[in-house]
Amino acid sequence: MTKEQDGIRYRRAQSVTRAEEIQAVEKKVRDSQPDKPCHKPRDSLFSWTSEFNNFTGFVNWAFLLLSIGSLRLLLENFIKYGIRVDPLQWIYVLTGLNEGGSGHPAVILIIYSLIPITTCLLVEKGLAVEIIPNTVGLVTHIVNLIVLILLPMIVIHVKEGFNLVGASVVTSFYTVLFLKMWSYIQVNQWCRTTHQKRRSSMRRSSASYSSLRKPSENNVDSSSEQLESKEKELVQYPDNLNLRDMLYFLCAPTLCYELNFPRTDRIRKRFLIKRIFEVIAGTQIVFCVIQQYMIPSIINSLIPFSNMDIAETTERLLKLAIPNHLAWLIFFYITFHSYLNLIGELLQFADRNFYADWWNAKDVDTFWRSWNLPVHRWAVRHLYLPIVEMGFNKFLAGVSVFFLSAFFHEYMVSVPLKTYKIWAFTGMMSQIPLSSLANYVQKRFGSRWGNMIVWSSLILGQPLCIMMYYHDYVITHYGESLLEEYGHI
Amino acid sequence: MTKEQDGIRYRRAQSVTRAEEIQAVEKKVRDSQPDKPCHKPRDSLFSWTSEFNNFTGFVNWAFLLLSIGSLRLLLENFIKYGIRVDPLQWIYVLTGLNEGGSGHPAVILIIYSLIPITTCLLVEKGLAVEIIPNTVGLVTHIVNLIVLILLPMIVIHVKEGFNLVGASVVTSFYTVLFLKMWSYIQVNQWCRTTHQKRRSSMRRSSASYSSLRKPSENNVDSSSEQLESKEKELVQYPDNLNLRDMLYFLCAPTLCYELNFPRTDRIRKRFLIKRIFEVIAGTQIVFCVIQQYMIPSIINSLIPFSNMDIAETTERLLKLAIPNHLAWLIFFYITFHSYLNLIGELLQFADRNFYADWWNAKDVDTFWRSWNLPVHRWAVRHLYLPIVEMGFNKFLAGVSVFFLSAFFHEYMVSVPLKTYKIWAFTGMMSQIPLSSLANYVQKRFGSRWGNMIVWSSLILGQPLCIMMYYHDYVITHYGESLLEEYGHI
Repeated sequence: MTKEQDGIRYRRAQSVTRAEEIQAVEKKVRDSQPDKPCHKPRDSLFSWTSEFNNFTGFVNWAFLLLSIGSLRLLLENFIKYGIRVDPLQWIYVLTGLNEGGSGHPAVILIIYSLIPITTCLLVEKGLAVEIIPNTVGLVTHIVNLIVLILLPMIVIHVKEGFNLVGASVVTSFYTVLFLKMWSYIQVNQWCRTTHQKRRSSMRRSSASYSSLRKPSENNVDSSSEQLESKEKELVQYPDNLNLRDMLYFLCAPTLCYELNFPRTDRIRKRFLIKRIFEVIAGTQIVFCVIQQYMIPSIINSLIPFSNMDIAETTERLLKLAIPNHLAWLIFFYITFHSYLNLIGELLQFADRNFYADWWNAKDVDTFWRSWNLPVHRWAVRHLYLPIVEMGFNKFLAGVSVFFLSAFFHEYMVSVPLKTYKIWAFTGMMSQIPLSSLANYVQKRFGSRWGNMIVWSSLILGQPLCIMMYYHDYVITHYGESLLEEYGHI
Repeated sequence: MTKEQDGIRYRRAQSVTRAEEIQAVEKKVRDSQPDKPCHKPRDSLFSWTSEFNNFTGFVNWAFLLLSIGSLRLLLENFIKYGIRVDPLQWIYVLTGLNEGGSGHPAVILIIYSLIPITTCLLVEKGLAVEIIPNTVGLVTHIVNLIVLILLPMIVIHVKEGFNLVGASVVTSFYTVLFLKMWSYIQVNQWCRTTHQKRRSSMRRSSASYSSLRKPSENNVDSSSEQLESKEKELVQYPDNLNLRDMLYFLCAPTLCYELNFPRTDRIRKRFLIKRIFEVIAGTQIVFCVIQQYMIPSIINSLIPFSNMDIAETTERLLKLAIPNHLAWLIFFYITFHSYLNLIGELLQFADRNFYADWWNAKDVDTFWRSWNLPVHRWAVRHLYLPIVEMGFNKFLAGVSVFFLSAFFHEYMVSVPLKTYKIWAFTGMMSQIPLSSLANYVQKRFGSRWGNMIVWSSLILGQPLCIMMYYHDYVITHYGESLLEEYGHI
């Protein structure tokens, strides 16, 4: 709509003061009339010419309408399906056992991880005291890491009756372990190189320890002593190679190893209790949402999705989108805020920068850089920068990060489902055109609409992937003939 | 949640500069380490201690979720009921005819209104030339107004086959006419009193015309002439008593009569076309919402409401709330913005102040004062102030306004439905405790929550009234035995 050329007002007189005078006289004359005039020329607030723009009440309106809509859906669902929540089922399920199988394979697989961890530490110790040559060490590490990542894949595939949730927990655990061990090995290698250089230069000259420092540090002579004393407080290279330090890193809420993590000076009990409460309550809420809202929607989507009925499939997709999105939001909060802060507080780990303000992200790239900071920081420090420092260009480094990320997304989804489709990989790939679209929209219509695109891709992309995987999962494991009888609740 | 006592940071040293020095040294030492440290002490953004508060992305999120939810409900409704919209039905219905009846009673009733209008004008003319005594004139006016307001009530009640929509149009039309004629009679009386005073004082003294003015107007001698010339441009009392002037007022978008309405100097064609388009499109959308979403919900609510099934009734109420609220919002926009501005533009009526920013209202009183300005202004000018000027206290004046308003709400709902229950009246009465609640909430939790209460009462109060009226309507007209077979679609 274009702005109307002129609002409703008397024609302006040539000089403003003259016009004001006339208006004042008119007002005086009108006010003196016996009919008590109560009208004067003015625009409606919704007219552009009124220049009124305070619509803050509609923000409250949107949140209220959202709550009322959700409340109704809660009630409708309750009337239709009754209570489907069963907390006991989850405890059973988390141990990794399906109804057909025996034992607790998920628990056993997690305990088994101590073996590759110990192997890694022993190799590092051997490298430090130089009883293992560098190349042998490197090869052993690589083999160890490959075995580490293949093991759950093989066990889950071979073992009968490994359920979905247990398998997901195992693959996530092994993914995190893989990234942490990669970081551990790489950081120790950096330290070893520096350590060896120092030792060889010390052998060559008998110069004092301080001359080894960079010249910039010697500028401030007064603080030179301070520096030395501070440096002595820090753990130096070979001293860090012990099981206690390694386990602290493996438990710490970060994927990037360093020898001296910043620490807090005490555990805040109130803070700890709140986070524990959030983890327990939040997990229950996510489980409720999944059992009560998502599972019926997913199962009901099977037939329309299989028949390519567009209206019904879209309806199912949108119906799934909202509970899925809420579950994801709560999952994000309990994982990245409550759980990681809880672990951080227990271990007195001071860096709690687990996420940036992705909810304000104006484009897709910013979202991916801000929602999962531990992984983002790992990717920059241990993959992107090393590749760039090795002399390759930045594009190759970016592509490498992208492919590793796509691989692990696929790994954490396909392995538990035993459906080796590439929907998660495709989902990651679709971020590239989406990113261009969001950038275009942001430039053309402003950052508010860029943010809308980011939210839309989150809200709608996830349920689409879930529906595709579920559809393929049913077809792979039960056959197309089962589609019809399995498609109803 | 209370703010955590201390964030995650190193203990402050006694002097800030000293602390900064230490931190700078520490940073330098850490940066020089071979393990490329990447962690530093900081809080998560959701922690109170982080003092982060930019959550604007969530406003976009809320609007997006609202759109997605609405889109899904649209689809679900389409799949369930197909297309129920039938524009032709409305043209038929608006003329006032039910399937059983004959003729177009609504049209006839509206044309009939010319008789009380002419009566009113003739009486005013008689009073002006003093061939009708004041008391006779007053009694004739009162009788005329009472007949005016009772006529549609009786016709609708007696005539068979008068449908709901036609009857609603007639009662609304007669309500507006009643208020306008009240204003016309009262303003003319004010003018007559002043006119008679002037004439009698002119008879007594042969003083010049200008000495009759209030002394305050003589202060500015220079503008005295201007005042006189301006005053001569204005229509003076007995000259306004003609059919043309009266019909202009009856058509104008205001309920308050005055002799010289502010006028615009031209009709803006673009503006006019936009408003015409809005009225036509908006009316169609409201009709669609009613036929497609509201009617099925209302009919389905009958059985649970009758059985007092709380869960299902609440679900129905919430299901009805959203389309009803959207219909009301569009209705508000097309009536108070598009339609009144359209009429105003056609009649070159310059005062377009038909509504204030009720969407930001922080309490219930403000909402009632701002959403319908023509009625609010009428009530203040023609009921509240006259009662106060007659020497009664303000409380009585307020109560009078409230009761007249409640009467007309009841009139416009009960008469078309032929169900003389007091739900609309009760709805108006419930504004009093609601107003106290909103004031308390606003004081206790801030104006944002006061605004939320106002919106909630709008969103939930209306569908509750609709369900109660529909329930009673069915029981009154079809008997309780019909409840069961009528309750399903």
